[in-house]
Amino acid sequence: MVSAEIELRGHIIDSFILPRVWGAIEEAGAHFHVREMRIGQSETEPSYARIEVSAESQRLLDDLIPELQRLGADLAEVQNARTALVTQPGVLPDDFYSTTNLPTEVRVQGEWLPVANIEMDVAIVIDHSAKLAYTTPMHEVRIGDAVVVGYEGVRVEAQERPRQREAFGFMQSPVSSERAKALAIRDVASAMVAARQHGGKILWVLGPAIVHTAARGSVAELIRRGYVQVIFGGNAIVAHDVEAAMFGTSLGVDLKTGEPVEHGHRNHLRAINKVRSLGSLEAAHAAGLLGDGIVAASLEHGVELVLAGSIRDDGPMPGVITDSVVAQGQMREATRGVEVAIMAASMLHAIATGNLLPASVRTVVVDINPAVVTKLADRGSAQVMGLVTDVELFLSALVDALPTT
Amino acid sequence: MVSAEIELRGHIIDSFILPRVWGAIEEAGAHFHVREMRIGQSETEPSYARIEVSAESQRLLDDLIPELQRLGADLAEVQNARTALVTQPGVLPDDFYSTTNLPTEVRVQGEWLPVANIEMDVAIVIDHSAKLAYTTPMHEVRIGDAVVVGYEGVRVEAQERPRQREAFGFMQSPVSSERAKALAIRDVASAMVAARQHGGKILWVLGPAIVHTAARGSVAELIRRGYVQVIFGGNAIVAHDVEAAMFGTSLGVDLKTGEPVEHGHRNHLRAINKVRSLGSLEAAHAAGLLGDGIVAASLEHGVELVLAGSIRDDGPMPGVITDSVVAQGQMREATRGVEVAIMAASMLHAIATGNLLPASVRTVVVDINPAVVTKLADRGSAQVMGLVTDVELFLSALVDALPTT
Amino acid sequence: MVSAEIELRGHIIDSFILPRVWGAIEEAGAHFHVREMRIGQSETEPSYARIEVSAESQRLLDDLIPELQRLGADLAEVQNARTALVTQPGVLPDDFYSTTNLPTEVRVQGEWLPVANIEMDVAIVIDHSAKLAYTTPMHEVRIGDAVVVGYEGVRVEAQERPRQREAFGFMQSPVSSERAKALAIRDVASAMVAARQHGGKILWVLGPAIVHTAARGSVAELIRRGYVQVIFGGNAIVAHDVEAAMFGTSLGVDLKTGEPVEHGHRNHLRAINKVRSLGSLEAAHAAGLLGDGIVAASLEHGVELVLAGSIRDDGPMPGVITDSVVAQGQMREATRGVEVAIMAASMLHAIATGNLLPASVRTVVVDINPAVVTKLADRGSAQVMGLVTDVELFLSALVDALPTT
Amino acid sequence: MVSAEIELRGHIIDSFILPRVWGAIEEAGAHFHVREMRIGQSETEPSYARIEVSAESQRLLDDLIPELQRLGADLAEVQNARTALVTQPGVLPDDFYSTTNLPTEVRVQGEWLPVANIEMDVAIVIDHSAKLAYTTPMHEVRIGDAVVVGYEGVRVEAQERPRQREAFGFMQSPVSSERAKALAIRDVASAMVAARQHGGKILWVLGPAIVHTAARGSVAELIRRGYVQVIFGGNAIVAHDVEAAMFGTSLGVDLKTGEPVEHGHRNHLRAINKVRSLGSLEAAHAAGLLGDGIVAASLEHGVELVLAGSIRDDGPMPGVITDSVVAQGQMREATRGVEVAIMAASMLHAIATGNLLPASVRTVVVDINPAVVTKLADRGSAQVMGLVTDVELFLSALVDALPTT
Repeated sequence: MVSAEIELRGHIIDSFILPRVWGAIEEAGAHFHVREMRIGQSETEPSYARIEVSAESQRLLDDLIPELQRLGADLAEVQNARTALVTQPGVLPDDFYSTTNLPTEVRVQGEWLPVANIEMDVAIVIDHSAKLAYTTPMHEVRIGDAVVVGYEGVRVEAQERPRQREAFGFMQSPVSSERAKALAIRDVASAMVAARQHGGKILWVLGPAIVHTAARGSVAELIRRGYVQVIFGGNAIVAHDVEAAMFGTSLGVDLKTGEPVEHGHRNHLRAINKVRSLGSLEAAHAAGLLGDGIVAASLEHGVELVLAGSIRDDGPMPGVITDSVVAQGQMREATRGVEVAIMAASMLHAIATGNLLPASVRTVVVDINPAVVTKLADRGSAQVMGLVTDVELFLSALVDALPTT
Repeated sequence: MVSAEIELRGHIIDSFILPRVWGAIEEAGAHFHVREMRIGQSETEPSYARIEVSAESQRLLDDLIPELQRLGADLAEVQNARTALVTQPGVLPDDFYSTTNLPTEVRVQGEWLPVANIEMDVAIVIDHSAKLAYTTPMHEVRIGDAVVVGYEGVRVEAQERPRQREAFGFMQSPVSSERAKALAIRDVASAMVAARQHGGKILWVLGPAIVHTAARGSVAELIRRGYVQVIFGGNAIVAHDVEAAMFGTSLGVDLKTGEPVEHGHRNHLRAINKVRSLGSLEAAHAAGLLGDGIVAASLEHGVELVLAGSIRDDGPMPGVITDSVVAQGQMREATRGVEVAIMAASMLHAIATGNLLPASVRTVVVDINPAVVTKLADRGSAQVMGLVTDVELFLSALVDALPTT
Repeated sequence: MVSAEIELRGHIIDSFILPRVWGAIEEAGAHFHVREMRIGQSETEPSYARIEVSAESQRLLDDLIPELQRLGADLAEVQNARTALVTQPGVLPDDFYSTTNLPTEVRVQGEWLPVANIEMDVAIVIDHSAKLAYTTPMHEVRIGDAVVVGYEGVRVEAQERPRQREAFGFMQSPVSSERAKALAIRDVASAMVAARQHGGKILWVLGPAIVHTAARGSVAELIRRGYVQVIFGGNAIVAHDVEAAMFGTSLGVDLKTGEPVEHGHRNHLRAINKVRSLGSLEAAHAAGLLGDGIVAASLEHGVELVLAGSIRDDGPMPGVITDSVVAQGQMREATRGVEVAIMAASMLHAIATGNLLPASVRTVVVDINPAVVTKLADRGSAQVMGLVTDVELFLSALVDALPTT
Repeated sequence: MVSAEIELRGHIIDSFILPRVWGAIEEAGAHFHVREMRIGQSETEPSYARIEVSAESQRLLDDLIPELQRLGADLAEVQNARTALVTQPGVLPDDFYSTTNLPTEVRVQGEWLPVANIEMDVAIVIDHSAKLAYTTPMHEVRIGDAVVVGYEGVRVEAQERPRQREAFGFMQSPVSSERAKALAIRDVASAMVAARQHGGKILWVLGPAIVHTAARGSVAELIRRGYVQVIFGGNAIVAHDVEAAMFGTSLGVDLKTGEPVEHGHRNHLRAINKVRSLGSLEAAHAAGLLGDGIVAASLEHGVELVLAGSIRDDGPMPGVITDSVVAQGQMREATRGVEVAIMAASMLHAIATGNLLPASVRTVVVDINPAVVTKLADRGSAQVMGLVTDVELFLSALVDALPTT
C-alpha cells in the first residue's frame, strides 16, 4: 500500500470538486481517508479538505494523482516539478506530464511558474535558466528539452461553477434545440462586445455551409464591423466564397434562387483554377474577382486567415496550407490573444481548434446537427456553449443583436 | 396472360410519368407493348401514349392498374365505376378502391364525377341518386354504402412537374439545412399572402417546442395579423402556453433567462389544474389567466383550435379531445378550405394532418431534426416543402417577412 | 426571512446529494447555514448534515423544499402530512404535492406509510381509515379524496450513485453510439434473466419499425422463450404485423427482398379491414391469418397486449383503445410488477410509458436516433440505459445473448 | 440563337435519360426540338432520339452540353476532342473539360480512346503520340500537357437503371434505418465474395469509432479472411488501435467494461509516443506492441494502409502522411483495381475517397448518422448503397454472413 496526501480548497462542494475527487478515487479502486475537513457554513464561505489517498501499487497511484489534479486537487507535500531530457527529436520521455486546457503552474526551484500557452494533450518544457515553462506539442520537442515528468510540482486551477447566471451561464446546460435561442444570441453578442472593448481577439471557425446558405453576407458584415480578427477554415469555404463572387453560385446552387444551375457543378473548379492562374487570393482581390465576400472583407480589414487543407480538397486554392502539422502550428500561433471563439457549421476545423484553445476562451459551437455540437461541447472545457440551431438564421440574428459601432 | 390498355397524356416525359409507368410495370413482373405514341416535338407540346399492359394473372393486373393510375395513367376503355355494398359497419368490401391524395374522378352512369374531400388511404362512396361521390374513412362506412371496388371508372390527375421556379419550387429538392433559408422563408410568406387574398385558410400544426423556445410570441403575432385560421395541436402546447402566461416558464424553464427554475417542474401541472377548476380555456381567458399567448390570441381572433390528446398527456386540459377517432374526425372537418399548411416542431400531429390533406394544399414542414422533415415530406405529396431549420428563428424571420396589414 | 431545517444522510457527497442541494438553494436565490456536519472519513462511511435553509418569502421556501426533498433532503422537524379534500371531480387542491418517480413515504398519524404505485407528476391520496397512501392522476380524483398538500410529512428516497460497475452501470454515462454495444447487450440480457428468475415482468414498448426492419421474428422468439410479459404499442405495429403475416410486406415493402411491391401501399389497409370484418385479433388468429408474428405469439403465450391508438391511425384495428385516458389507465395497471422495461424504436408510446414507471424499473431505451434516446433517458430516472443503435441488429444480438431455457 | 444536335440511345425512357435531358434543357432556359424519335415497343427494345438543342448564347450552350453528356447524351456531329496546352504549372486552360466519375471516351484522330483512371472533377490529358488519354488533377498538370477543352469529342456512358433486383439493387432506394438490414448485409457479402473470386480489391475506409466500439476484432477477422486489400484511415484509428493493444482502452475507455479508466485520457498519447520512439508501426509490430489489432493484421497480411493526417491529430503516428496533396495522390494510386469500397463510421476520409472512385466501384456507406450517409450517398454515383445502422453490429453480422474460406 502506497499513499499520497492531497488538498482541496474553495467551493469544493457546490463546485462538485470534492464528490468528483472521491468518485475518481473509488473508480480507480483506490481508497481515501479524510485527514482534515472544514466545511463552509454558508454559500459564501470556502471549504478545505486534506485527504490521504492510498492504492495497492505505485503505478495505480501515479495514474490517479494527475487525474485528481485535473479535478482540482493539489498535492499536500510541495515539491519541485521533475523533468527528463528529450533524447530523440519528436519523442517525449515515457512518463511525460500530459496537460489539460486549464490554467497550470509548475514548481521550479521552489517557485510556482505559470505554464505559457496552455492547451490540451501536450507536454510542458521548462527552461531552467530563464525560469520559464511553456507547452510544446510532441512532434516539436528537440533533443535536450527538459520535459516535466510525473505529477509532482504541477498545480492545476480547476474551474469552479459560476455562482450567478451570466453570459455563458448556459455552460452546464444540456445542449438543446428546445431552448430559447434569442437569449443565447444576446449572451454571445455581449461576450463579443466585452472582448473587443479591451482588445481581445474574436476567432471564427467557418465551414463551407456558411456560403451555401447565403450567410456569407452576415460574416462579411461582422468583419466590417470589427467583430472578426481571426478566421480558421479550409479550402472549401474559400473556394465557394470566390465561386459566389465570380458566378453567384455555391457548389453550383444559385444563391439568389436556391436552384441548382446546370453548369454550376464546375463553378468551384473554375474559381479555384482562376485564382491559381493569378497566383494568390490577394492578386485575385486586386483583379476585382472577390466581390464583397468573406475573403475580400478579410483582406480589406486585416483579418488573419488560416486555411488548412484536407484530403477532400479540389485544387487547392493558393493560400491553403496542405501540410497538417504546419497548419496546426499556424493555427496554434493565431489563437494567442483570442478571448471568444465561434465555431459555425464546421466539424474538422472546429475539433482541431478546440484542442488548441485554453479553457478560459469563451467558445460557442453552432451547428444544426446535435451530434456535432455534443462532440465539440464535450471536449473538456466548461466554457463551451453549444447551440443546436440554424447557422444562417443565427448569424443574421447575431448581426442584428450587435451594436453597429 | 391477361391484359388491359392504358393511355397517358400531357407532358408525360419531362414529368417522369411515362418512365415511372414503365418502371412500375417491369417491377411488378408484368409486360407492356406500345400501341401508339406521339412525342411532343418541343418543350411546349404534349405527348400521347397508348400502351397494352399484360400480366400472368388477373390478381397481378388488378394490383398493378391502380398503381399506374396513381402515376397518371387512364384506362383506355372507359367504363363506369363498380361498387359493392357495405355489409358490416366499419368494414369495407374486400377489393375496395383505396384513394390517393390527388384529385380523383369516378365515372357514374357515363359521367365523370369529382370525388369530394379527397385524402389518402380512404374509400370512395357513391351516392347514385344524388350523383355524388365522396371519400369516407374505413371506420365510418355504414351498412348499405356503395363503395367503389376495383379500378375501372376511376381517374386520377397526376401532378406534373412544374416548369419554372415558383413558390414551392423547392419541392423536388432534397431537404437540406445547407440551403439558403432566407429564400424559402420569402416563398412561404408569399404563399400565405396569396392564400389570404382570396380567403384561403392557413392551418398551423404546432408542437410544444414552440413554447419552450419562446417562439410563442411570434405565433401570437401571426394570429393577430390574420395569418392563422386553424391550429392543430395537443395537450402539451396548450398546457405550456398557459404555464408561460401564469408562471413565465415552459416545462419549468424560465423563458426570460433560459434557466430552469427550481419549482418549475410542477408549473404545467398547476396550470392544467387551474384551468380544470375553471372548466374551460374560455373561462380561464375570461379570468385573465392566458396573458397574450397563443390560446388567448386564438380565442380573441376566432382561430379554430383542434386539440387532440395522446397517452403521454398530463391532465388533460379542458378542450383536449381524448378519443383519437373523434379528434381525427374534427381535424378532417377543419381541413376543408385550407390552402396552406405549416407544420412546426410537431411529429405526431403533423403526420396525422399530412394523411388528411389533399395534395393540392401547399404544405411546409419545419423542424430542426432532418429525420422528422424527411418522414413528413416523404408522404406522397409533391406540394411539401421541407425545411430543416430552427423553428424559433424561422418564425421570427417569417414574421419579419410578412406584410403587416 | 423565513426558514426551515433539512437533514441529509448517507453517501451525500459522492452521490452528489449535498452539492446538488446547495446548488438548488443558491439557484433559487435562497441561503443556507450548516448547523451540523459529520463527513465520512473514508469511502465506506456515511455522512450527515443538518442545514438551515432561509428565504425571503414563504412562497419561495414552499417552492424550494419539495425540490430539495426530491434531491434527497428530509425536513428536520417531523410532522404529519397535510391533506385537503377534493371539491371538484378531476381537480386537485391548489397546493397539491406533485410526485417524483422515486420511492416515497408520507407520515400519517405519526407513522411513515409507503406511497403505493409511485409514478411521476401525480397526486398522493391518503385513506386515513385504512392507513393507506397511493398515487392518483389528476383526472381520476373524486370529491372527498384527501390529497396531500404542501411538503411536510413527505419523504423521498433519493437514489445514490452505485459503487461498482454492475448491470446498468451505464446509467450515468452519456448516451453514445461510439460505445461498445456488445457489453451493453450482455447487461440487458442479465437484467432480463434476473427479473424472470423471481417472476418479475418484462415490458416491451414497440414501434412499427420493428416490423419494417424484419426484427419481428426476434420479438416473436423472445415471446416464445418467456422474455415478454407485457407489450405496449399502437395501431401501426399490429397492422404491419398482420400485414406481414397476410402479404409478406410491411408498409408495402417486401420483407424478403427489401423492395417495395407495387400494390403494397394498400396492404396494411387490407389487413386492418380483414381483421375488422372478423371482429377481433383473436378471431383473426383462429382463422389462421396471423402466421407466427408478434400478435400470434402474444396470443399463444398469454402476453398482455395494451394497444393505444393515436390520431394518425388508419382503421383502427380491433383491440386498439382509441381513448387516450382509458389507454393510459390500462397501461398504468399493466406496469404493476414490471421490473425491466425495454423501449424499442418507439417515441410516443415510450414517453407515455416512461411517465408511468417508478424509478426502480430498469429501463432500456433503444433507438437509432440519438434525439429520441436523449429525450427518453432524460426523464428523471437514474435507471435508464440509453442505447443509440440499430434496433433490428440489437434484437438479433439480444436473442443470441439470452439463454434458451 | 445557336444550336447543337444530340443523340440518345438505349433504354432512355425507363432509365430516366430522356426526361432528365429534357428537364436539364428547360431549366437552363434553352429549347429543344425533336428531330427523330424511335420508341422501343416493349420493355426489352431500346429507343433512339435525335434532338436539336438551341440557346440564346454560345456561353449558355457551352455550359449546357457537358451537362447533357453527363446525363447520357452524345453530340450528333462527331468531331475530335479539342485540346489546349498548359502554360502555368498546376493551372488548367480556362474552358477545360471537367470529368464525371462515369466511363468516358475522347475522340483523337478519328478514334475513340477510353480515359484511364476516371474520377470526378479532374481534367483529361491526351498524349497524342502514344494515343493515350488519362485523367490528371488540377495541381498535377505540367507545362505542355494537352488538356481537353470544350465538349466536342467527349463521350460519357451514362448508367442505366438496372432491370432486376440484384446486389446493390438498393441503390435507388432512399437511405433508411427502417429497412431490413439483414438483406442488405447479405448483398454486401455477396458483392465482396464476387469481387474476390476474380481478384478484385476490397477497399475499407475506417473511422476511429471502429475501435471505440470494439468492432476492431471484426475488422481484423475480415483481414485474416482475405476480405480487405486496402485500408484508408487517419491518425486516430491507428492511434486507438495501438492504444487498445497496449492498454486495453480506446480514448481511455476500457474496451472490456465500457467504463472510462481514470488515467486513460493519456493512453493514446502514450501509444503514439511509444511508436514514435521506435520509429515505425513495423518496428512496433516487431516489438510485439500491436497485439492482434487492425494494424497488426494489416502488416501480417500485406494490406495496403494509406493513412492521411489532418489538423486535429495528436503526434502524429509514424506512417501518417501529413501533406494532404501527397496523401490524396497515394489514395488515388491505391484505388486502382478496387471493385468494392466499404466506408464505415468515417466522414472526412470517406468523402475524400468518394471523390476518387469511378462510378463502377460498388460502394457501401455505413454510419449511424443519416446525415453522413446522405452526404456520401449523394455524391453522384448510382452504385452507392447507404446503410443507416450501427457499425459495430453491422461488422459483426457481416463477419457471420461471409464464408470462412
